[in-house]
Amino acid sequence: MTLSLDPLLNPRSIAMIGASADAGRIGGMPLDLLTRFGYAGGIYPVNPKYQEVFGRRCWPDIESLPEPVDLAVLAIAAADVTPMLRRCHARGVRAAIVYAAGFAEAGGEGARLQDELEAFVAESGMAVAGPNCMGFANLNMQAYTAFASVFKTAPAQTGPGKVSLLTQSGNVCAAVYAIARRLDLPFSHFINTGNEACLDFSQYLEYLAADPQTEIVLGYIEQLRDGDRFKRACRELERQGKLLIALKAGTTDKGAQAVQSHTSALAGDRRVYGAAFRQLNVIEATDFAQMAHLASLATLRHRSAGKRVAVLTMSGALGAILADKFIGAGLELPDLPPELQAVLRGGIPDYGMVGNPVDVTGNVVNDPAFVHTVLEALATTDAIDAVVVYAPGYMLDRMADALTDVSRRHQRLFVAIDTGLAQSRAALRDAEVAVFEDLGLAVAALAPYLLWCEARGVKRIAAAPQLDAPAVPALPGNEADARGYVAAFGLPQARVNVAANADDAVAQARAAGYPVALKVLSADIAHKTEAGGVALNLADDDAVRRAYGEVTRAAAAAQPGARIDGVMVQKMERGVAEIIVGATRDPVFGPVLTVGLGGVLTELYQDTSHRLLPVDEDIALQMLRELKAYALLDGYRGKPRADVAAACRSIVAVGNALLAAPAHVAEIEVNPLLIKEAGQGVAVLDALILPATRSA
Amino acid sequence: MTLSLDPLLNPRSIAMIGASADAGRIGGMPLDLLTRFGYAGGIYPVNPKYQEVFGRRCWPDIESLPEPVDLAVLAIAAADVTPMLRRCHARGVRAAIVYAAGFAEAGGEGARLQDELEAFVAESGMAVAGPNCMGFANLNMQAYTAFASVFKTAPAQTGPGKVSLLTQSGNVCAAVYAIARRLDLPFSHFINTGNEACLDFSQYLEYLAADPQTEIVLGYIEQLRDGDRFKRACRELERQGKLLIALKAGTTDKGAQAVQSHTSALAGDRRVYGAAFRQLNVIEATDFAQMAHLASLATLRHRSAGKRVAVLTMSGALGAILADKFIGAGLELPDLPPELQAVLRGGIPDYGMVGNPVDVTGNVVNDPAFVHTVLEALATTDAIDAVVVYAPGYMLDRMADALTDVSRRHQRLFVAIDTGLAQSRAALRDAEVAVFEDLGLAVAALAPYLLWCEARGVKRIAAAPQLDAPAVPALPGNEADARGYVAAFGLPQARVNVAANADDAVAQARAAGYPVALKVLSADIAHKTEAGGVALNLADDDAVRRAYGEVTRAAAAAQPGARIDGVMVQKMERGVAEIIVGATRDPVFGPVLTVGLGGVLTELYQDTSHRLLPVDEDIALQMLRELKAYALLDGYRGKPRADVAAACRSIVAVGNALLAAPAHVAEIEVNPLLIKEAGQGVAVLDALILPATRSA
Repeated sequence: MTLSLDPLLNPRSIAMIGASADAGRIGGMPLDLLTRFGYAGGIYPVNPKYQEVFGRRCWPDIESLPEPVDLAVLAIAAADVTPMLRRCHARGVRAAIVYAAGFAEAGGEGARLQDELEAFVAESGMAVAGPNCMGFANLNMQAYTAFASVFKTAPAQTGPGKVSLLTQSGNVCAAVYAIARRLDLPFSHFINTGNEACLDFSQYLEYLAADPQTEIVLGYIEQLRDGDRFKRACRELERQGKLLIALKAGTTDKGAQAVQSHTSALAGDRRVYGAAFRQLNVIEATDFAQMAHLASLATLRHRSAGKRVAVLTMSGALGAILADKFIGAGLELPDLPPELQAVLRGGIPDYGMVGNPVDVTGNVVNDPAFVHTVLEALATTDAIDAVVVYAPGYMLDRMADALTDVSRRHQRLFVAIDTGLAQSRAALRDAEVAVFEDLGLAVAALAPYLLWCEARGVKRIAAAPQLDAPAVPALPGNEADARGYVAAFGLPQARVNVAANADDAVAQARAAGYPVALKVLSADIAHKTEAGGVALNLADDDAVRRAYGEVTRAAAAAQPGARIDGVMVQKMERGVAEIIVGATRDPVFGPVLTVGLGGVLTELYQDTSHRLLPVDEDIALQMLRELKAYALLDGYRGKPRADVAAACRSIVAVGNALLAAPAHVAEIEVNPLLIKEAGQGVAVLDALILPATRSA
Repeated sequence: MTLSLDPLLNPRSIAMIGASADAGRIGGMPLDLLTRFGYAGGIYPVNPKYQEVFGRRCWPDIESLPEPVDLAVLAIAAADVTPMLRRCHARGVRAAIVYAAGFAEAGGEGARLQDELEAFVAESGMAVAGPNCMGFANLNMQAYTAFASVFKTAPAQTGPGKVSLLTQSGNVCAAVYAIARRLDLPFSHFINTGNEACLDFSQYLEYLAADPQTEIVLGYIEQLRDGDRFKRACRELERQGKLLIALKAGTTDKGAQAVQSHTSALAGDRRVYGAAFRQLNVIEATDFAQMAHLASLATLRHRSAGKRVAVLTMSGALGAILADKFIGAGLELPDLPPELQAVLRGGIPDYGMVGNPVDVTGNVVNDPAFVHTVLEALATTDAIDAVVVYAPGYMLDRMADALTDVSRRHQRLFVAIDTGLAQSRAALRDAEVAVFEDLGLAVAALAPYLLWCEARGVKRIAAAPQLDAPAVPALPGNEADARGYVAAFGLPQARVNVAANADDAVAQARAAGYPVALKVLSADIAHKTEAGGVALNLADDDAVRRAYGEVTRAAAAAQPGARIDGVMVQKMERGVAEIIVGATRDPVFGPVLTVGLGGVLTELYQDTSHRLLPVDEDIALQMLRELKAYALLDGYRGKPRADVAAACRSIVAVGNALLAAPAHVAEIEVNPLLIKEAGQGVAVLDALILPATRSA
């Protein structure tokens, strides 16, 4: 569908079907708002029961209207909706909003009604929002089609706005609007998507990307229906210099569901959405008030900023607390360069601090010229990216003139935190200083915003690779099949041989050289270790012979009926560290890559990094560096450095192996990938290919 | 010192030395406040320059006062302080507050002045607060001795108060007071300790434990000077049913300082304070606003509560967001029992939710009788511990009558989150419903509070053990010495033998049985692995011979001049998991025990648990269970269960080994402790004893 949403979101005329004279009822509230705030387009209440509502003529039916309206708002029962839409369509109505609940979310008859609605829309091409939605508002043209009392209770907006709200919950839409208006954030659109029977989140997002009034979108997402469209819309937003700030609900991975692979256990909903957001230039929010503050910060995104913060305060204690919170949230407070410290020391007494935080002390606050010198120095040093002034109430007021002046003359981001009641807040905001009145909220909003700024120049999207698809083994395949497939993408394999009996295993072990590992080979057993099918560090013939019996018996006992194809004999290889590299298909975003610490602790510590595919070697290196376990690869505690370059090539290869595979391959996992010393490459120690299951 | 702080904190008369007629100056502000708020005791301004200030007679000097006052407040320069205190003491003044900065914090001459001050106090027995402090206030008697404009700008307190503020920073004291007063929290004492030259944090805490007006203490701590006194004061608070809520600054472990042991690297300031707080019944705060909300919650601590929360809302989206945040903060939202769900389903439509969160839907909010039924059911079920109602504005108002009624009739904790502007907030608070207006703050305060409630019945303090002190080896000792010492406390050792040359090592290895490990033995090398002094999984004679040369050469190269006492040969033992157990001496709290995941990942993942010593087996088990790595011991992914009971005995033994050791033993570390299958015990694979260093 490539509908224009203009009649829906920017309507020239509105018919209210099921109009009420009561401003407290859903058929009356939008009429009240349209009247109250002076919508300039045509307003047509429709209800045979009334002659007049809110001082306007009320029309008996849609057929009697004097002109074809852009938008019909339906405040009528679910069962009446599609018949009414047909009548609207016949009268040239281009778009409609359906308030009624009782569709798919109610099941049964409701689901049938929704099918009927969807069929009508497909056939007519009308733009139909909802059902089960609260409606919209275009604050730039006072077009209120939402039954939301928040427009009356929240502080009214007087001028034009550039922030749009796009949410999958009417309650969230209203809650965020109320908080954001208290911060005086000016809105463009207020959109609640409802059931998304015909128009989904991503289509609205596309519209907002093109909307000349919208610059910042606050999104609330429960579930995306069209991941590809979402990706395209996000890229278009980015191309336009716009920004989406999104809160995703349902991010708690509830319970331990049985999953077939480690990768599936690691690449949960929360992590994949998080990775997608970062790659798509979306700032992830966690809270309504924080969201509103993020939007305020985003209006200052033309200013330079990053994660290296200088804190300026007049209290060592306040500085220490803020430093703890910033560092805990992933920001940095680098020591200021010595020459800069020398400048500061020129006016800051010995009991103040010139490192970072800078504690100018309570006395120096009264010396505006010196405060100006300090701020000017912080505005120009290369050692930091943003300046946060933390001083409550009158202490901030005394520094405000210097702060506004320096903020006006430099493009660096300046922030003020005032846990008192400073008089200078408005003047500071006029000078593009971000002002926070709560410490916790300041950190909650600044940390993701500054980390987003930090990532602005970083490559997030890799070019799609040209891939030849090698033959895929019959699935499910055993480890040897999986190894064979991934080897075609350039993944080096540890040398392994398959033994059919204990004598054979001993011969293979001697040929490989002790110590060796034995692993049972079966397409039916995904988790060999848990099945008792792996024996490591076997030192001699006796150990191999004993282990052969143990692993085959244990595997057979753990999974009766599993076909055992033999036992793999592999020389114990020595390397620096083991990682897991897995590629899966996410139901929303498609192919996703996971990299993490390998071994038994993988799922306990969840030390992982995720990206939408494709990835290239640059992004593979980013992924490795995001792991705490990266230290293991980087000369940790006297260990040799690992062959990170080879690891990156292998990470890319696992991603490519899934991209090249047909749709019935659900997942490819290399676990562990042994990373050897620098220059010595890597070795696949185990690999797995999983087919799509019926239910997926 | 066992001074009474009554004249300081509960003074019957106050002299202001260095009085000013200007309410904006430090010598005038307290006089203004005392007058403005009607302090009933004697007020004696002292300054030869004035006849009268604030309508009161001003006295020329302390000697001319008509009575010996309880408390003198000194608003005079640092150099004049001790001479003036002598004069005050001679006139029978019992206590003094010293505002002046320029003492120890300024170094040089200031340090000398502080020494002089301390010497005078020791000799005179006067109770002297500060120097470099902002002063106090007793809000129950309107005794303001602080130069803090916050008493004029924050909402005034009309009735008596039971919350006391005790901080090591005047700015923090004022900031918390301002925020807490906006929440209408009623205060008893406002105390800023300053330099703590003579009276430290713990002494004030002792006073507040005994103070009949104080029930809740909000503390801000940069550094405790007397850990033992702090511990005693906390135990006394607990005995009195009082509660300390403390914010500790400087909790970021900055940089990687060279430390001698893994335990020292793990048991940083932040973690030890955190452990001490939990054991001492202190709730740790992280933020000013959160602190104030924690105090509000603490006024409801007679109500039953715990970490299992039921969320009731009228929006699935709001419920989902809150659930994410609660679970992320460590709380639980258990599914409600089927019979309770059946009751709820009686009135909640299909598109609502009866699990947890409970989404009664927007319609049901208008049915107070059914809302009452739901709340009553949540008040009485054993499946949860606390009820959180999340409904903004008028939605909450519609449920308010039911909520107040149920809260009055049940002792369970009820909480309301209103991100709108509900009219019913005051009525809810009257019925002891905790009300929050911000989602983030609600979670930030509720999570630590409910986890504290959850821990109320749990053993936190172990009885002191009776210990015989075995002979301590000469320190620094090598691994064999350390093993010998800890073995005396019942720690089972892996069998090891020391080899003096390669042939000897081969013989020992054959006797032990392959595979074996070789480790260099040297009192001078604490980190054998990093020094290249360890070889694992050696499978045969050749490997042992080769490894012998490698480990001795590598160790010698890594630490030239280190005395090498030989090489230990040890059979590779198999177990379920390896942990680290270390006992150190914290400079504030004394002996502390650390338990964590063992091996190379210990410091990367910081998966540790800490306790002040002594610990017993119950507490040792708590420690193990706090680790993510506990899953490894508990039958993880098909592994056998580990001998947790034996591990607990060994954890207690390491703690006892330090408790029994003389002061020159700084630290005892067993790393790793191998935990074998249930019933097979544990084995010390390595041990270390470190002497106190000169600088420590």
